[in-house]
Amino acid sequence: MTSHISPAVAAVDWGTSHFRLWLLDAAGAVLGERRSAEGLLSVPPQGFAPILERHLAELQAPPSLPVVICGMAGSRQGWVEAPYASTPVALDAVLAGAVEVASSARKIRIVPGIAQQRPDAPDVMRGEETQLAGITALASGSHLVCMPGTHSKWVELRDGTAVGFCTWLTGELFSLLSSQSILRHSVAGADKSISPDATPFRQACMQALAQGGDIGAQLFRIRAAGLLAGLSPQDSAATLSGLLIGAEIASATRRFAAADKKPVTLVGSAALAPLYRAALELAGHEVRIADGDAAVRAGLFAAARQLGMVERKDKATA
Amino acid sequence: MTSHISPAVAAVDWGTSHFRLWLLDAAGAVLGERRSAEGLLSVPPQGFAPILERHLAELQAPPSLPVVICGMAGSRQGWVEAPYASTPVALDAVLAGAVEVASSARKIRIVPGIAQQRPDAPDVMRGEETQLAGITALASGSHLVCMPGTHSKWVELRDGTAVGFCTWLTGELFSLLSSQSILRHSVAGADKSISPDATPFRQACMQALAQGGDIGAQLFRIRAAGLLAGLSPQDSAATLSGLLIGAEIASATRRFAAADKKPVTLVGSAALAPLYRAALELAGHEVRIADGDAAVRAGLFAAARQLGMVERKDKATA
Repeated sequence: MTSHISPAVAAVDWGTSHFRLWLLDAAGAVLGERRSAEGLLSVPPQGFAPILERHLAELQAPPSLPVVICGMAGSRQGWVEAPYASTPVALDAVLAGAVEVASSARKIRIVPGIAQQRPDAPDVMRGEETQLAGITALASGSHLVCMPGTHSKWVELRDGTAVGFCTWLTGELFSLLSSQSILRHSVAGADKSISPDATPFRQACMQALAQGGDIGAQLFRIRAAGLLAGLSPQDSAATLSGLLIGAEIASATRRFAAADKKPVTLVGSAALAPLYRAALELAGHEVRIADGDAAVRAGLFAAARQLGMVERKDKATA
Repeated sequence: MTSHISPAVAAVDWGTSHFRLWLLDAAGAVLGERRSAEGLLSVPPQGFAPILERHLAELQAPPSLPVVICGMAGSRQGWVEAPYASTPVALDAVLAGAVEVASSARKIRIVPGIAQQRPDAPDVMRGEETQLAGITALASGSHLVCMPGTHSKWVELRDGTAVGFCTWLTGELFSLLSSQSILRHSVAGADKSISPDATPFRQACMQALAQGGDIGAQLFRIRAAGLLAGLSPQDSAATLSGLLIGAEIASATRRFAAADKKPVTLVGSAALAPLYRAALELAGHEVRIADGDAAVRAGLFAAARQLGMVERKDKATA
């Protein structure tokens, strides 16, 4: 997998439940890649360095190769704590604040997360700040960004500065409700993939939007519709997904006044982006898609350059 | 425990996770009681009769004693299916529709549940119909009844007829979020009991009411407030409870137009009634409390009389 061109830096996205590493050349192009489930939750104390070194060795990375990391590895329960930057904060400044892993012979820096210290709306992110910094289209102007996932985040950006953000437990609620609640009987046996064109998904989205995000009364109906009208597992899962995603969008649209009739940049995975795109369009938003993987990689590379871990290309070619 | 007066009937509330049996005399007074966790979920196939007979034997009930049952024992997964009555339906008619357990030498009847067959709002209940029938104050006039629990139900009654109802997953969401989600870190170590006077509970209720039941953006803040501002486990649990109960009330108040500024009859357990009472009062409702245990017992006794299993007292004294 590795090229004969030597890598300039290793970029690592180290989250709660995943580990992803890319070897990048001096222009940010990918020379090699590793993915595993060794997220924060499965790393034993003192386990960070051995896991990182094993993946680097698999890609034959030299011992001198610098590493830049974002995500939960920088949390208090992580490798080295990278204290949060506070909103409003320029994404450039966040990257520049990456902390050093002093215990390592290798040069390693961890990008901090961002905290919103408002008493009425406290919030935190780790990893998303790096994705945002990697989407060059977001560097100027005013943007609303939707980042779906276990804990979906919506971020308001102005000229590269994170002004405010808010988190929804959408992915976690879907997982808990479909595997642990009374609704597990309703969705048992459903496909993992839900189509954004499925009528139950779209109807449920519209319902959640019409209710302004209050879907409390709609959830048990999935179970009741199974008992009374034979709603299938697949349609039950699509309904649950539509209700939760629709509720998130209704809630976010109301919260961010700027959201009204404004394009939303969707930073999504292959699984979630089509569902969120459909739901956002049902809510009347124009949608621009950005690839989440490419974004975090570009953000990590931008951090490495800003931190002087990689020679700036413009310098090199000067 | 048993009295020298002979029992006239055994009344059984057999739910998903509990079994409760009372021996009642001909006037409905309690002569003996059994409680266990042998709910539907823990009963093996063909296990209903042995469990019932064991509890009856413990109370030295004669083999001829009739038994009236409500709850999930009448579901498709239960002992004998008692098909749902459909809204709108008089509670008297529901009780009168109790089905016989033909396989038993003993005279046993199971009260059906109620279904709401509306395609836009399908819903089901089993057990609550018997509680409602047991609250004599609800027999005439127009009432809105709140029945908190794992699956909270709100019921609109008119002159003893169930006109419509709706279910919220409030109790199940509290349990899942506080034990399985990211919020488990926030509430770990909190007391089981939450005070209705706790400021975080009341503030969270008010927030949920102000948001019209859309609490999606508020949940993750509990975690963030723990990380950023040291919110305690007890205050985190109180906040979660307040958000969920407040959201249910906001949602129900909006749904039942009749709810506006109307008294709500709260059929509660000792644990939940004080929290719901406080939240309902914050929402501007006058609250009347009915004891859930007494209600189900009275409803089962009313069923037994209506089904001719117990001689009517008025007849006996005529």
